[in-house]
Amino acid sequence: MALYVYKFGGTSVGSIERIKAVAKKVKKAHDLGDQIVVVVSAMSGETNRLIALAKALQQQPNGREMDVLLSTGEQVTVSLLSMALHEIGCDAHSYTGSQVKILTDSAHTKARILNIDELPIRSHLNKGKVVVVAGFQGVDEQNNITTLGRGGSDTTAVALAAALKADECHIYTDVDGVYTTDPRVEPKARRLDKITFEEMLEMASLGSKVLQIRSVEFAGKYNVALRVLSSFKEGKGTLITYEESPMESALISGIAFNRDEAKLTISGVPDLPGVAFKILGPVADANIEIDMIIQNIADDATTDFTFTVHRNDYQRAKAALDKTCAELGAKKVTADDGIVKISIVGVGMRSHAGIASTMFKALADEGINIKMISTSEIKISIVIDEKYLELAVRALHSAFKLDQEAVS
Amino acid sequence: MALYVYKFGGTSVGSIERIKAVAKKVKKAHDLGDQIVVVVSAMSGETNRLIALAKALQQQPNGREMDVLLSTGEQVTVSLLSMALHEIGCDAHSYTGSQVKILTDSAHTKARILNIDELPIRSHLNKGKVVVVAGFQGVDEQNNITTLGRGGSDTTAVALAAALKADECHIYTDVDGVYTTDPRVEPKARRLDKITFEEMLEMASLGSKVLQIRSVEFAGKYNVALRVLSSFKEGKGTLITYEESPMESALISGIAFNRDEAKLTISGVPDLPGVAFKILGPVADANIEIDMIIQNIADDATTDFTFTVHRNDYQRAKAALDKTCAELGAKKVTADDGIVKISIVGVGMRSHAGIASTMFKALADEGINIKMISTSEIKISIVIDEKYLELAVRALHSAFKLDQEAVS
Repeated sequence: MALYVYKFGGTSVGSIERIKAVAKKVKKAHDLGDQIVVVVSAMSGETNRLIALAKALQQQPNGREMDVLLSTGEQVTVSLLSMALHEIGCDAHSYTGSQVKILTDSAHTKARILNIDELPIRSHLNKGKVVVVAGFQGVDEQNNITTLGRGGSDTTAVALAAALKADECHIYTDVDGVYTTDPRVEPKARRLDKITFEEMLEMASLGSKVLQIRSVEFAGKYNVALRVLSSFKEGKGTLITYEESPMESALISGIAFNRDEAKLTISGVPDLPGVAFKILGPVADANIEIDMIIQNIADDATTDFTFTVHRNDYQRAKAALDKTCAELGAKKVTADDGIVKISIVGVGMRSHAGIASTMFKALADEGINIKMISTSEIKISIVIDEKYLELAVRALHSAFKLDQEAVS
Repeated sequence: MALYVYKFGGTSVGSIERIKAVAKKVKKAHDLGDQIVVVVSAMSGETNRLIALAKALQQQPNGREMDVLLSTGEQVTVSLLSMALHEIGCDAHSYTGSQVKILTDSAHTKARILNIDELPIRSHLNKGKVVVVAGFQGVDEQNNITTLGRGGSDTTAVALAAALKADECHIYTDVDGVYTTDPRVEPKARRLDKITFEEMLEMASLGSKVLQIRSVEFAGKYNVALRVLSSFKEGKGTLITYEESPMESALISGIAFNRDEAKLTISGVPDLPGVAFKILGPVADANIEIDMIIQNIADDATTDFTFTVHRNDYQRAKAALDKTCAELGAKKVTADDGIVKISIVGVGMRSHAGIASTMFKALADEGINIKMISTSEIKISIVIDEKYLELAVRALHSAFKLDQEAVS
């Protein structure tokens, strides 16, 4: 007998029909003799409806009251799913975050989980019941309702899996797993059976929005085996795990990309200590997040400094940089919002040389000019002209043979 | 400094604009230096929306889960009203029933309040905050969410007023008080400044649906001064109280009526012990509630037996009675669903003779035939042909001078 935590997001419980389908899926697993804890989000659309009500009353809604409001969304879903389970003869017991109790700090609308009392849940499981828990919410020491912020239901599921020492935590979503890259760009993209936490983190942070980064970090930290599956079709999904079997592991696992960035360069900056701070300080002060940073020394004792920001912040970042350019007596600012960032990710590159050169050769063969390069231990990112995105992704996918299963 | 509990029903908080209006009203009272606890219902329509979701999943929704579901309605309102108060500079703190905590028994969907911990509320009041409490809900010993059943928010308000020893409990509704009779029938109907609990109970049970009977009983039991006021216009409303000042008290306080009854008579029944049970047993077995009952002995050692039921149960009651008639060898069944019941209510009739004769004379003067009479200590009820309803109400209203203030 295994213990599983299942998590269903807003789309998967977005209507009466879908709630019934989830109930069926849960009952099927329960009938096989496994213990099942289900974590659910608010029905899709509900959270936005509640936020709209709040915003109609208060420009900047009070955090404590916002949490009281938003937590009703998941509370509705746990009761409805429990009813659906009862209706098909599967005994179920619902819990709000406060009833569990999922103890958090008091940072309203973005609370962190401190502790989970798993005993009451275990007692219901042992009586043969399915336990249905409201995601995204908890309670602080003073019994105030808190919420965990965007994607908080994934975090709830992982935290419960850790507390209950579950065999696996299943995240049901509208995709059937993690792919080598976006199938809309490369139709040969292949679902991965397995991926490591580190790889998943790199993929997720690069725009493969399958899971919330926070829940992956959490799962990694507490060694919870995460599996991403489709709510709507059968399949084994992708297992995210610590296990690394070198014999099986491919050189790289996937290709992620991000179309939302823009690149800014300030060139001919006198190369003095503290210049990086002088350039980035004003950008940070304007509350603009910076992604890639590259600095090169030019031959005339000046330096060229390039970084990328979100495209929404492009104009503001450029204004800040123009001002800095004048102050520092630098040569000029060049800016480009027609770029895209592509990354190859894989723990395999730790132990294999030549990954970078394979990557660069594949791009060169297609005549694609690389504008920036940045590397980490398990990732190589490049910036290219956005018009080459699809071509580059397909070339890399093929160069690393991602359309073929890894050979064991 | 006085302490008031205000209760606003679903219509009064049915939209963002109305919630803002409630916030303004509350702030106004709070600015005068009074301590205010506000009890709110779910926004109008919300409870029905939730019930429809539940019914779509389960024919007979699980009671525990139904309470988890329905309690979200009031939880949404407390957070929104608190935000509206914050927005206009009035510090507020919301409570769910579980947070208060309002301890109830475990009878889901119709729980009874056992205890209220008023200390946390008092502590917030003493800090100058308005406290906003979710009506209709509580929590049992095992921390399960419970609800109090229809009209439960009134009960919450009265129970909080009792626990906090509030000066008055204000029930804001869509009428501006309790009237001598329905103004749609008698335009001269006058708002009462004061009415006793007993009178209010008789009026309420007779179809003057201003307050839930249960909350009036509760208020009477714990001697909570209740005031019924309009959410939408200014005014002092009607105070419901124990105080009886004989000098001021009118003979009767009001005229209630009920159009929803039907009358059935079985005549020529052999007058033997147990005959009442033989007649009413089958009706009760059919789950039909009986209101008035009258039995007369005829001169031929048989008896005539008449009772009234809700008009919806008329056909079923008649069928049951026809069967009984045959079994008992009674003469016949006569049935009439074209009747109306009118009652005059007043504690004054305890100490004043001649009320009944004044009533009967007023009806006789208008040529109205009385079909049934039934009396209690503070009420006289009659049944007449429904076509005379308006005429009878106006005649009685005038005969008892209800359009004039009581003389002190």
